[in-house]
Amino acid sequence: MNTFTANAIITLTTDFGLDDPYVAIMKGVILGIAPHATIVDYTHGVEPGNIAQAAHLLRSGCQYFPQGTVHVVVVDPGVGSDRRAIAIETPACTFVGPDNGVLALAAQDAQDVGGEQVHIIELTNQQFWRSSLSATFHGRDLFAPVAAHLAAGVAFASLGQPTDTFVPADMQVVQCIDNGLLRGQIVHIDRFGNCITNITRYDLARYGIGEQVIVEIIDQQIGGLIRTYADVPPGRLTCLIGSGGNLEIAVPNGSAAAMLGVGIGDRLRVRKVETREVGK
Amino acid sequence: MNTFTANAIITLTTDFGLDDPYVAIMKGVILGIAPHATIVDYTHGVEPGNIAQAAHLLRSGCQYFPQGTVHVVVVDPGVGSDRRAIAIETPACTFVGPDNGVLALAAQDAQDVGGEQVHIIELTNQQFWRSSLSATFHGRDLFAPVAAHLAAGVAFASLGQPTDTFVPADMQVVQCIDNGLLRGQIVHIDRFGNCITNITRYDLARYGIGEQVIVEIIDQQIGGLIRTYADVPPGRLTCLIGSGGNLEIAVPNGSAAAMLGVGIGDRLRVRKVETREVGK
Amino acid sequence: MNTFTANAIITLTTDFGLDDPYVAIMKGVILGIAPHATIVDYTHGVEPGNIAQAAHLLRSGCQYFPQGTVHVVVVDPGVGSDRRAIAIETPACTFVGPDNGVLALAAQDAQDVGGEQVHIIELTNQQFWRSSLSATFHGRDLFAPVAAHLAAGVAFASLGQPTDTFVPADMQVVQCIDNGLLRGQIVHIDRFGNCITNITRYDLARYGIGEQVIVEIIDQQIGGLIRTYADVPPGRLTCLIGSGGNLEIAVPNGSAAAMLGVGIGDRLRVRKVETREVGK
Repeated sequence: MNTFTANAIITLTTDFGLDDPYVAIMKGVILGIAPHATIVDYTHGVEPGNIAQAAHLLRSGCQYFPQGTVHVVVVDPGVGSDRRAIAIETPACTFVGPDNGVLALAAQDAQDVGGEQVHIIELTNQQFWRSSLSATFHGRDLFAPVAAHLAAGVAFASLGQPTDTFVPADMQVVQCIDNGLLRGQIVHIDRFGNCITNITRYDLARYGIGEQVIVEIIDQQIGGLIRTYADVPPGRLTCLIGSGGNLEIAVPNGSAAAMLGVGIGDRLRVRKVETREVGK
Repeated sequence: MNTFTANAIITLTTDFGLDDPYVAIMKGVILGIAPHATIVDYTHGVEPGNIAQAAHLLRSGCQYFPQGTVHVVVVDPGVGSDRRAIAIETPACTFVGPDNGVLALAAQDAQDVGGEQVHIIELTNQQFWRSSLSATFHGRDLFAPVAAHLAAGVAFASLGQPTDTFVPADMQVVQCIDNGLLRGQIVHIDRFGNCITNITRYDLARYGIGEQVIVEIIDQQIGGLIRTYADVPPGRLTCLIGSGGNLEIAVPNGSAAAMLGVGIGDRLRVRKVETREVGK
Repeated sequence: MNTFTANAIITLTTDFGLDDPYVAIMKGVILGIAPHATIVDYTHGVEPGNIAQAAHLLRSGCQYFPQGTVHVVVVDPGVGSDRRAIAIETPACTFVGPDNGVLALAAQDAQDVGGEQVHIIELTNQQFWRSSLSATFHGRDLFAPVAAHLAAGVAFASLGQPTDTFVPADMQVVQCIDNGLLRGQIVHIDRFGNCITNITRYDLARYGIGEQVIVEIIDQQIGGLIRTYADVPPGRLTCLIGSGGNLEIAVPNGSAAAMLGVGIGDRLRVRKVETREVGK
């Protein structure tokens, strides 16, 4: 089990945006418990209540933080209901949040690497919560204080009861529907209008598709993969493996999402280029 | 009078947004004076020049920060005019900002609890300002340096001249217009479209209304109160006491502000449910 | 050459926005190398790929940070192409970013003051990068780690090969087209709708125009300069020298950009008031 230093890093992922003081209030609570914690805003731009998007974003970047980082995720439409609150400890970091799927993709990745080193706990020990628990803001009253206590050195096991399961992410799994034909979906659209899909570099390798692909979305067929945005002229639809390892559709100097008129959740297909298509 | 440690927390509340470097420039100035200060963005999403909204937001969350926190508020349409600059010290924290009402609600709360322990000072001691004072950016030239000097240990009393008054917030007070009938207004709309009003849990108790209420706004009559968002089906208008203790109108998985077409400043009435209405 | 302490400040300027985790990922990488660095978001609101705007914003505020600050700028449409990566050390601070003009205005200012104390280096020493360099996210893989190593005490000279040049900013220079007549352009529009131009207080002095000016833009002639926003009635178009020393067009309690229908890059002319126009 990890030991955390007094200087531990806590990241915050929410759907609160930054125009309201909700995020700041969580930081105030954390600093009251762990004055030396370094708090990093991971993202607060998750679409309100979009658990699958939060799960994807958390997985896409949590590995770039130092060992022992505590990642708090509060995308919690069921706050105050009977959904559980959990924490998941891995060799790399600890995740804290509601048990509604937001932690599931990142936790699954950790289990795939070394399952026996992943520990799950239901957060039931009220000693580490704020003294009064509201029905609508567990980010402030439960998740922030639990993360702060972890950062201040409290043992993971003391936070509640061990459990073996967590709710999976409600997200389409990449499907190989035919030899050399994958079906996936858009899981995030970034500020540049890049459409990031749930199909990874590993999926393309695993299913023998490689990097000579045709992406089919709406009525478009987009050939790829390019290496970086500057490889094609501005304004042209193109595909590449983005910095997080996922297939993305992009328009250099433009917005692929706007050009295609697509959004999070929309589906796409990826197939291997036929020999006769190469070089077209 | 409080003593502040070198690790004091400074929060920043402005109407600057985060797309311009104005907030960062204030931080640069602070770190030049108090390198070990922990700076927290409280909110920079106040509507440009909306003093009443800033006053509400500050009051709604400042109590979650550790004792000794310095809260700086720069919503300052009168910058460079003859409006005063003030700081207000309470047993819990210190507020710094223009004397235009932005600090008034939070300061009034502190006075209501223990008036004799609240001290107000007009910020006249230029020794604690930047060496040249612009006419348009006192956040950078006056308020940030004053807050930083407080965080670095400068005595509150040395910042200027004691004064007994501050400008009140230009905000409708909750009115009891009839037995069991309150009139209030929307003071903030959050990212979820929740319409937060100036009517608090205490107002409902004080005026004998309780939690069986009808909220009247525009042409809608909304029954309440529910306990948390998950208590009603998605898409339905409902009312509850939010995490800050204020009555709010909400639509789970939707936006109450959009559904009602209302904004900050719009009025509402709250009345006790008649016996014949109960259970409808 | 400067020595940096372990507590050095790193600022981040990007066109990533704050809704994606890209900025957070850079911070995770930095904290893994320089755990005690203080990281400040300078701005992430640069228009996607707008190098000239980023160059202006960096220049307008970098001087308010303590000596030794490392300013990282990642507005990098040519990422993964053959554009160089550079760092520029001045007596005040160090700039790190792509060699595409984003650093040019701030670096030019430093050269104008004391050219021989400004050192430029091409970032070629891969020892200070992440072990694998992606083709699309050098902010994470190259610029963040280089800045973190500087903050952790690595010598500037060890980062790569000295060079004498950097790519200039692609920005219209202020032109004196006639006696007492200047031509400039809008380089930024802030949250208040203020139109900030590339014409500075020094330009007005250097070309003998002074502060009795007429600004011509679109079909408007705007007299000025006022001292601060509160000097004119709300809603009126006016001009002043803003807090960064640049001529700006403003509408108190309103948006000059919206009223004029102008954007970044639009041009304007400034002329000295004719004697017969004074006092109109």
